[in-house]
Amino acid sequence: VSPRRSVAEALTTREAIVARAVEVSSLEGLEGLTIGRLATDLEMSKAGVLGHFGTKQALQLSTLEAALGIFRAEVWDPVAEVDAGLPRLLALTDRWIGYLEDGPFPGGCYVTAVSTEFDGRGGPVRDAVSAAVRTWDAVLAREVRTAIDAGDLPQETDPAAVVFLLGAIAVGTNQAVQLLGDRRAPRLARAAIRTALHAG
Amino acid sequence: VSPRRSVAEALTTREAIVARAVEVSSLEGLEGLTIGRLATDLEMSKAGVLGHFGTKQALQLSTLEAALGIFRAEVWDPVAEVDAGLPRLLALTDRWIGYLEDGPFPGGCYVTAVSTEFDGRGGPVRDAVSAAVRTWDAVLAREVRTAIDAGDLPQETDPAAVVFLLGAIAVGTNQAVQLLGDRRAPRLARAAIRTALHAG
Repeated sequence: VSPRRSVAEALTTREAIVARAVEVSSLEGLEGLTIGRLATDLEMSKAGVLGHFGTKQALQLSTLEAALGIFRAEVWDPVAEVDAGLPRLLALTDRWIGYLEDGPFPGGCYVTAVSTEFDGRGGPVRDAVSAAVRTWDAVLAREVRTAIDAGDLPQETDPAAVVFLLGAIAVGTNQAVQLLGDRRAPRLARAAIRTALHAG
Repeated sequence: VSPRRSVAEALTTREAIVARAVEVSSLEGLEGLTIGRLATDLEMSKAGVLGHFGTKQALQLSTLEAALGIFRAEVWDPVAEVDAGLPRLLALTDRWIGYLEDGPFPGGCYVTAVSTEFDGRGGPVRDAVSAAVRTWDAVLAREVRTAIDAGDLPQETDPAAVVFLLGAIAVGTNQAVQLLGDRRAPRLARAAIRTALHAG
């Protein structure tokens, strides 16, 4: 086995661990994610799993990063080429609701699941979750400002108010779908978003 | 010690356990709530704690019930005498946002905290959380229908759409306050509620 091959194998194993960690933590939380569970699921030793990360916290941060990458690939990447402003806002919020309705994570919105787990704690994982939400809010605010400048939203629109409402509709949709199995929620969410964006 | 006295003492101890269980589970979750932790906090034996409930699940259900009672006392009871319909909707949503801004639970909205913990699982605790959210939604829908009948909301208003949006604004406020420490969120939430209720 050449060194190059070893690095490739190590990367592949690491990716397999992270992929399984994303699935497990989507349902059980990032604190509920145990090295022992991953080792059993992947038929590895605990030391073999931990060796790829060093600490449980490093595994948690890598897992969160991977989940955020999946969100970007599902919601952002497909709309990156749509015209900035209202057209892109409508396209991305539509994908966002679709992601909440029938998404890649078994536990629904990944960030919401880990938010409530970590919001009462301090530490690097909580900081990384907060940073992800802030970054997404900043992306949305930029699109809202572009829509205002283009005349697609009223000049007096407060971008912070629109971003707050879009985020609220998303977390509300997630709770309705995940907890209540409410199948009307995505339709109500899309209608509420169009009202919020004056795009009824 | 008379039997009457024993019952009273047992009730008081049970209430003390539940009160502590509400605090701990608000931050750590209802699954994270352990008999050992409660026993340590209350300087009791594990058997002494468990004896009041029989099973951990019974303790979880009693804890949830107590938390729901606190929500009712904070949000519903103070507005029960306000005129039904729009006046009561505005009063109770105002108290609801106040509860999320600076409420009795260290981990923010209790139901949201336990929702994300249990929404990927089955069982009696999850059923009880769902039932609590459905009951609250039904309370809100009744007020919306009263407001429509009184002419305070347009006749064509869909109560389900208004209830969805009010719930979304609440969970969005909770996430903004708890995860981001966003102090503007309650103001944005109150404005969004007034827009949703055509009460700007």
